[in-house]
Amino acid sequence: MSRFLRVIPVAEAIASLLAIAPDPGVEMVGLEESPFRILGSNITAPDDMPGFSRSIVDGYAVTAPDTAGAGEALPSMLISTGRVEMGSPDPGEIKPGTCRYVPTGGMVPKGADAVVMIEYTEEMGDQILVNRPAAPGENIVAYDEDFAEGEIILQAGRRILPQDAGVLAAAGILSLPVRRIPRIAVIATGDELIPPTADPLPGQVRDVNSIVCETFIRQCGCIPVSCGIIRDNPEDLRSAVQEAVQRADAVFISGGSSKDERDASAEVISTLGKVLVHGIALSPGKPTIIGDIAGRPVIGLPGHPSSAFIVLLAIAAPLLEAMSGQKIPVRTVPALLTAAIPSAKGREDYVRVRVRDGTAQPLFSKSGLLHTLVQSDGYVRVPASREGYEEGAAVEVILW
Amino acid sequence: MSRFLRVIPVAEAIASLLAIAPDPGVEMVGLEESPFRILGSNITAPDDMPGFSRSIVDGYAVTAPDTAGAGEALPSMLISTGRVEMGSPDPGEIKPGTCRYVPTGGMVPKGADAVVMIEYTEEMGDQILVNRPAAPGENIVAYDEDFAEGEIILQAGRRILPQDAGVLAAAGILSLPVRRIPRIAVIATGDELIPPTADPLPGQVRDVNSIVCETFIRQCGCIPVSCGIIRDNPEDLRSAVQEAVQRADAVFISGGSSKDERDASAEVISTLGKVLVHGIALSPGKPTIIGDIAGRPVIGLPGHPSSAFIVLLAIAAPLLEAMSGQKIPVRTVPALLTAAIPSAKGREDYVRVRVRDGTAQPLFSKSGLLHTLVQSDGYVRVPASREGYEEGAAVEVILW
Repeated sequence: MSRFLRVIPVAEAIASLLAIAPDPGVEMVGLEESPFRILGSNITAPDDMPGFSRSIVDGYAVTAPDTAGAGEALPSMLISTGRVEMGSPDPGEIKPGTCRYVPTGGMVPKGADAVVMIEYTEEMGDQILVNRPAAPGENIVAYDEDFAEGEIILQAGRRILPQDAGVLAAAGILSLPVRRIPRIAVIATGDELIPPTADPLPGQVRDVNSIVCETFIRQCGCIPVSCGIIRDNPEDLRSAVQEAVQRADAVFISGGSSKDERDASAEVISTLGKVLVHGIALSPGKPTIIGDIAGRPVIGLPGHPSSAFIVLLAIAAPLLEAMSGQKIPVRTVPALLTAAIPSAKGREDYVRVRVRDGTAQPLFSKSGLLHTLVQSDGYVRVPASREGYEEGAAVEVILW
Repeated sequence: MSRFLRVIPVAEAIASLLAIAPDPGVEMVGLEESPFRILGSNITAPDDMPGFSRSIVDGYAVTAPDTAGAGEALPSMLISTGRVEMGSPDPGEIKPGTCRYVPTGGMVPKGADAVVMIEYTEEMGDQILVNRPAAPGENIVAYDEDFAEGEIILQAGRRILPQDAGVLAAAGILSLPVRRIPRIAVIATGDELIPPTADPLPGQVRDVNSIVCETFIRQCGCIPVSCGIIRDNPEDLRSAVQEAVQRADAVFISGGSSKDERDASAEVISTLGKVLVHGIALSPGKPTIIGDIAGRPVIGLPGHPSSAFIVLLAIAAPLLEAMSGQKIPVRTVPALLTAAIPSAKGREDYVRVRVRDGTAQPLFSKSGLLHTLVQSDGYVRVPASREGYEEGAAVEVILW
């Protein structure tokens, strides 16, 4: 069937997908559900934070002038008026000549403008000897020093991390706008396919692509919508795709493996919408289809699981990442190839490799096989500008 | 209080935690729930895979000798006996002089030992001209070529990725052993603390550490168990910790901020179990406590959220990662410091930095403040062997 494909470069295929990537919009979620989501708009401080002046040490609240010139030899002597209790709304007041114990995090009494660490004081009955001068403001966090009312706490587009959740909690923000998680429909087609729960008769194989697509979709921060296995005929496929575009923001159709069936995908897409791409300069993955049905990107993946998986990595991932705002973390390792990787100029090749002691062994296998997917440690990408790599070449392996 | 601490190096503190890290054990989960979990034992193929010989191309199943010497000029001429239907249990039989169409993934008929791609054939009524010789086995995947019965498909300890889920589905493995997800209890102590849902009175602040700890625990692949806010007294703390060790595999206690209270954490741990470490050569985070209660690691974190967060990164993460078998992905970026970072030899310092155009600006701030946590892009770790970094030094920033 490849004879009829108009093959375009990988970058062009990705660009055509990104151009139609729908904006999933914004929804409100509770603070507890917000971690690891993408903030939908700027968050500002509803009040001054921390809201009252706090001590950042255990020590004595004082007026700074009372400690001027204090030293070990000639300490300042202040009358202690007791202690500030943690969480108490009334820390009392400091008048010149007095001081009051305040624990770390406690409210600074009125009139005090510094806290002397307990290490620099000595207790003598109700008198406190201070043997170091304190500067105004010392060891105090002012009531709006963290965030002033209206100040931006977190910027739109930020992925909410543990420390961000903490600052949101501190500000009492219990509900916040985050990007909606895109929903991606997954349809598997093929008369030979049965669900993983069934026992195959001769000629049947269990559906692999659905769970691979669905797990990959989760890895990219999206929600998979399983649409099951559809028989290889245009009518069933058309109604399945129609339903899928209603239920999801994008649709993945993994082809069965016959020529007729794959043509059916393109035919159904062009009936319901528009085929944008049919054929990508990618190996494996050449017969991939990209379409647009009512503003929903549709990707027709090859039926061979190992080819479909490369199309997910090379073509689908940029779409999913753009829609979700989440990135799959990429780990790479440099290695020397134990064998040459041939490739045609103008075509991107993804070759699975096994990594051992700084070397990468290319695992070439028949396209219908699964084992190299799980026996490899990652893959080497041969860019379109290169005609492969020679044995011994230094490459960057992208680890699974 | 630091005057009373016996400070030990960070590596020693981590080692003392790892030495008591409990094994969370193994549980069975369904295939659909298995992705991103850690495999608890080797998985072997229950049957030969794919289970029958399949074609990997669209073409004609033949006996190889029938195509010997075939070429464009002198093609082999074979009688077509029809086509193999996808998913059909009976592909028929090939006798010398005949051939049969088989789509990609279809079962190879009995008697056939090769498939000639349709591109190298020509149809003439019920005769097929083959203009290229086929080698025995060409374009066929044998019935056990992916995995033979009993062969290991996936090794214990592997994190189940999309392609792995696909291979498990192909093998019909519907339930599998994975490592149990460790449960980590989180207790916040402090008389000044109120839940994020409450409006603070003067002297009160909302609890930040609980949600920071809980979100961090999730990030490390564990399940947080929230134990709420406990008042600053040994009785309440003791019963909270007793309950926590029943409910979880490890316990984090984030101290309030007063000296007495932190002593209470150590006292409660030593009453119920054993204090292993009290004081770590880490800044911030020096007054951290590590204990063991009935085989459960207990970490006493500082009350200041920004200090507690560094202890999570530096001390708690290795424990959580060891228990869960999951790693927080680390992204780093090289940068030149815009200002010196002073540090004492023998102490690890974690300094938050803002990264701009290849430079890293250290954000020093009073320890009670939150804003540098969210206004920084990551942190620089000064190892214990160094006395800080000079302005302009090349450092590796670990991004949030």
